[in-house]
Amino acid sequence: MSTAIDPVEVQGLVAAEVERQLKAFRADVEKELGELRERTVDNRATLVVFSGDLDKILAGFVIATGAAAAGLETSMFFTFWGLAALRKKGAPSAPKNLMERMFAMMTPSSTESLGTSRMNFFGMGAIMLRKMMKDKQIASLEELMQIARELEVKMIACTMSMDAMGVGKEELMEGLEYGGVATYMADAASSRVTLFI
Amino acid sequence: MSTAIDPVEVQGLVAAEVERQLKAFRADVEKELGELRERTVDNRATLVVFSGDLDKILAGFVIATGAAAAGLETSMFFTFWGLAALRKKGAPSAPKNLMERMFAMMTPSSTESLGTSRMNFFGMGAIMLRKMMKDKQIASLEELMQIARELEVKMIACTMSMDAMGVGKEELMEGLEYGGVATYMADAASSRVTLFI
Amino acid sequence: MSTAIDPVEVQGLVAAEVERQLKAFRADVEKELGELRERTVDNRATLVVFSGDLDKILAGFVIATGAAAAGLETSMFFTFWGLAALRKKGAPSAPKNLMERMFAMMTPSSTESLGTSRMNFFGMGAIMLRKMMKDKQIASLEELMQIARELEVKMIACTMSMDAMGVGKEELMEGLEYGGVATYMADAASSRVTLFI
Repeated sequence: MSTAIDPVEVQGLVAAEVERQLKAFRADVEKELGELRERTVDNRATLVVFSGDLDKILAGFVIATGAAAAGLETSMFFTFWGLAALRKKGAPSAPKNLMERMFAMMTPSSTESLGTSRMNFFGMGAIMLRKMMKDKQIASLEELMQIARELEVKMIACTMSMDAMGVGKEELMEGLEYGGVATYMADAASSRVTLFI
Repeated sequence: MSTAIDPVEVQGLVAAEVERQLKAFRADVEKELGELRERTVDNRATLVVFSGDLDKILAGFVIATGAAAAGLETSMFFTFWGLAALRKKGAPSAPKNLMERMFAMMTPSSTESLGTSRMNFFGMGAIMLRKMMKDKQIASLEELMQIARELEVKMIACTMSMDAMGVGKEELMEGLEYGGVATYMADAASSRVTLFI
Repeated sequence: MSTAIDPVEVQGLVAAEVERQLKAFRADVEKELGELRERTVDNRATLVVFSGDLDKILAGFVIATGAAAAGLETSMFFTFWGLAALRKKGAPSAPKNLMERMFAMMTPSSTESLGTSRMNFFGMGAIMLRKMMKDKQIASLEELMQIARELEVKMIACTMSMDAMGVGKEELMEGLEYGGVATYMADAASSRVTLFI
């Protein structure tokens, strides 16, 4: 049996039914979107700087500032020999045991003493490289580090390496963050660009 | 002429109309979701270990175990000098021709003989590094490899390198996978983190 | 008071309501799809070739051709010592100042003079490596470069490095592209695989 109904009532009926039927579809789409969301990346670049060679550290900062300039949130994780890039010039050394002293002797005491990966010849390679860059008006390491800071490149010192090599916070520059591999991985896992330098 | 309508009839009407309108939309969304799906990444990290230096191999295992601990499916592809990290201690050598023997002489015979990328001084760098890590209770390479196995990090030996350097499977550890660049690329192409060490 | 309504009118009502509800939903989905789209990657691999060592450059070309063969758009960005891989054999040198001449003296003049990262011994390492690869019928560097070209691997020479090292275009191979870190980053930021070699 059919009864007459109010148009408003019809509209309500229709709206409710449309909503009910859409609900399942919406749930499907949300689920798929959610799954995709977990497989996306952030606008981020993450560099491990392992090397203590001037040329490689320079390359690291050129890439990091380039990434930041291109709009990527950029972080550099300095580990092992790479820690040398973060040494404060003329900083007091943390008290060191014999092994740590030997390591310290063999690693540069500030960015200005970094050697190159090739043709080191008692620092000649680095002096030449620095002179050529100056002649060509290419930014020096110290200038690049300054630019990196201005572009808010995050610089993280690896605490495990600091511990292993007996390097204290007072020996490193200001404005650093500190962390281990979990800190690095948290950034790296959502990065567009991940490099090991 | 207007007649009264049955709510059931309304329901049928709605169902048919929703279906009709959704059909095109659903197809659009599915297409776009499909296109996006092809541009996503998996929760995966893939490392090429090219270097045969103890310090770099250590860094590789620290990162690989860190990635696996962070929930990423992690694989390490050992190629070139990196194969040295997979040498079984005291394994019989595969029969080698003169070139292969010369190469074998110049590469370490197990992880315990790996040198460092800096300050090698007849192995002093590696001995110091190992001693410092022990003093600081940082996991040794052998311990890290054990952790990597427990975290199901996939370790792949590069068959092209094995062939080029005359290294046989009997000279390498148990539990490895074997493959070439296509094997590596299959993992790398869907990885969040890709590093060359 | 209720009045009877026309079935056609009901149909119109239903169609309008479905459309209204779908419209909002469609806008939501489009927004979310758009957000996701900005967080996806392209089928692309991007390699920085920083090293001038034969073994590392070989590894770079093996990976690059592997990536291209796997269907990834692949580009190699040659910077610093890596520029040596692009030297044209017997090319006239650009006029160089003293510093540039010293650099030129210490870097190989073509791919055929590249040394290895280990065991260089006045080129012995490279000669051995080349001989072993030939014996095993593994593609030589020159063959790999040829394959890379056939697979349309994009080879980019870093203009900043060329400038710093005083290397002119006439000293490099044909068919290269030229660019700086911004060029590199444009490719890298949408790549599935990013490596620093």
